[in-house]
Amino acid sequence: MSELAERVLNGELRALSRVLTLLERGDPAAAEAMARLDPHTGAGYAVGITGPPGVGKSTLVDRLAEHLRGLGLTVGILAVDPTSPFTGGALLGDRIRMQRHYLDDGVFIRSVATRGQSGGLPRIVKSMVRALDAAGKDVTLVETVGVGQTELGIMGVADTVVVAMTPESGDSIQTLKAGVMEIADLYVINKADRDGANHLSAAVTAMLHMADLSDGWNPPVLLTQAYASVGISELWDSVIAHRDYLSDTGGLDNRRAERRRSEFLETVQEELYRRIRERLDDDAELGELLRQIDGKTAEPYGAAMGLLRGAEFGQFASEAAGH
Amino acid sequence: MSELAERVLNGELRALSRVLTLLERGDPAAAEAMARLDPHTGAGYAVGITGPPGVGKSTLVDRLAEHLRGLGLTVGILAVDPTSPFTGGALLGDRIRMQRHYLDDGVFIRSVATRGQSGGLPRIVKSMVRALDAAGKDVTLVETVGVGQTELGIMGVADTVVVAMTPESGDSIQTLKAGVMEIADLYVINKADRDGANHLSAAVTAMLHMADLSDGWNPPVLLTQAYASVGISELWDSVIAHRDYLSDTGGLDNRRAERRRSEFLETVQEELYRRIRERLDDDAELGELLRQIDGKTAEPYGAAMGLLRGAEFGQFASEAAGH
Repeated sequence: MSELAERVLNGELRALSRVLTLLERGDPAAAEAMARLDPHTGAGYAVGITGPPGVGKSTLVDRLAEHLRGLGLTVGILAVDPTSPFTGGALLGDRIRMQRHYLDDGVFIRSVATRGQSGGLPRIVKSMVRALDAAGKDVTLVETVGVGQTELGIMGVADTVVVAMTPESGDSIQTLKAGVMEIADLYVINKADRDGANHLSAAVTAMLHMADLSDGWNPPVLLTQAYASVGISELWDSVIAHRDYLSDTGGLDNRRAERRRSEFLETVQEELYRRIRERLDDDAELGELLRQIDGKTAEPYGAAMGLLRGAEFGQFASEAAGH
Repeated sequence: MSELAERVLNGELRALSRVLTLLERGDPAAAEAMARLDPHTGAGYAVGITGPPGVGKSTLVDRLAEHLRGLGLTVGILAVDPTSPFTGGALLGDRIRMQRHYLDDGVFIRSVATRGQSGGLPRIVKSMVRALDAAGKDVTLVETVGVGQTELGIMGVADTVVVAMTPESGDSIQTLKAGVMEIADLYVINKADRDGANHLSAAVTAMLHMADLSDGWNPPVLLTQAYASVGISELWDSVIAHRDYLSDTGGLDNRRAERRRSEFLETVQEELYRRIRERLDDDAELGELLRQIDGKTAEPYGAAMGLLRGAEFGQFASEAAGH
């Protein structure tokens, strides 16, 4: 399986694709491959692009990829699509637009399915970003939709976070209020030829002036018309400016260290949860507890706390020693 | 502390408020109170109201509460606001509109802060819905904003899920595609006096016809003008129709049992995560592992899997026996 990692390091896209699939499945071979790839990470740069549905994120990503290719840079695209808890599948609709990139070996595109309520998105995408970095992608663009938890999650995935809006979604300011302001390094007002773009730009700028931006970076507010490739090179220039700012202030190292730490913690959490769920099918005592919860002879919250009372976690740490 | 539960059962709103605070804090006293309250749950009905920002969810909830009061029913409102990962606070802006209900003891309003990336929202709100049920609220309205994970999460919280849209948000159909269709029991097109309401209604209905609605319920698409209280009583009638459908088919018991089970599992998951985070500060070996992850001598994903390798979960189940 370390052969697989070698093939990724040699730039084989099929091998990279295979590693991402192993990560999605939680296959043990993923850990083996990632251990081999990890020392080769650090040269790539990850840009998150997020915002509500309908603002043209896919087109932005498409044109940004085109621009980066023009600069001679290789590009990875992780399109994180919302997932039905029932089907577990990713929506591929908008991806079709990007098919022309499939003819270009310098662009690697992957749709990533979030895993319903397990909160797996940020963790899996963090691992994937590292895999693309090791595979030599100069820039990885992580596109995600949503307002709320998902956006907050992406903050920990990217070096620079771009929040996209559009003048006509009258809810843009509400979206900002919804916790997005604190994760945005850059704002993009797309479809800027439509009515209200300058008004929205002024409103966002005004909100930024009121906000307490403790890290010293003033997020620029950019106007784009992605479908016509207007404003795309300025967007990339602003990403570079933010990257340079982070590098100069030590913020980039901090973000990346924090990302590694949370990837570790999130993996521990997911894996513990997975094992508990697995055990539900096998363990008679746990099964009995669930029946008591169903039958209201046990209360869910208290039963969970009781289950964990006195559980000993010290052994986890000692298992880990010597790694 | 069981005195606190007694006071909740006696309808003291301050005691109820206190229990919700204990739940938010993860205070051990919460489990004690919930155990005492749990046998008194089941009479209340929980309605989730969700949709993108700007569709007028708060007004819908406000007018629905008014309508329910007119029917002589007591109302609980849980307004789940998106939270900044930095401040941990809830946005209270829209709540101010509802102040008039503060004069009415029959309406209990609570803003709930989601806990950033911990995925705590669905679990905490499930516990809170049970607390309000035990406190004698006939109907609990759970309002939340967002597109994506948050909406999917609310599905497990409510007996009936209402998805609100508005004709002018051109992204409504995209929102539907984003996994919302599978969680909606009712659709509301609010601000129905604006252009495009009938068009959107037809589009949603068409999508519903194409969808595979395996549980046999056909979600109605309702038009409302919440600010003018238009369509509110029809909305409630549809909730009742859905409730009756669920009762007749056994779906209500299934939903509620599933909700209890996932509240239990989510509590286990959160509590495990909390303990691991706590241990990071105390445990020298785990601290050393984190330093290795920072310094790239350990790979985050593999380190997490290694940490858990061989960990024994059998004791959890035996600890739980005898509950």
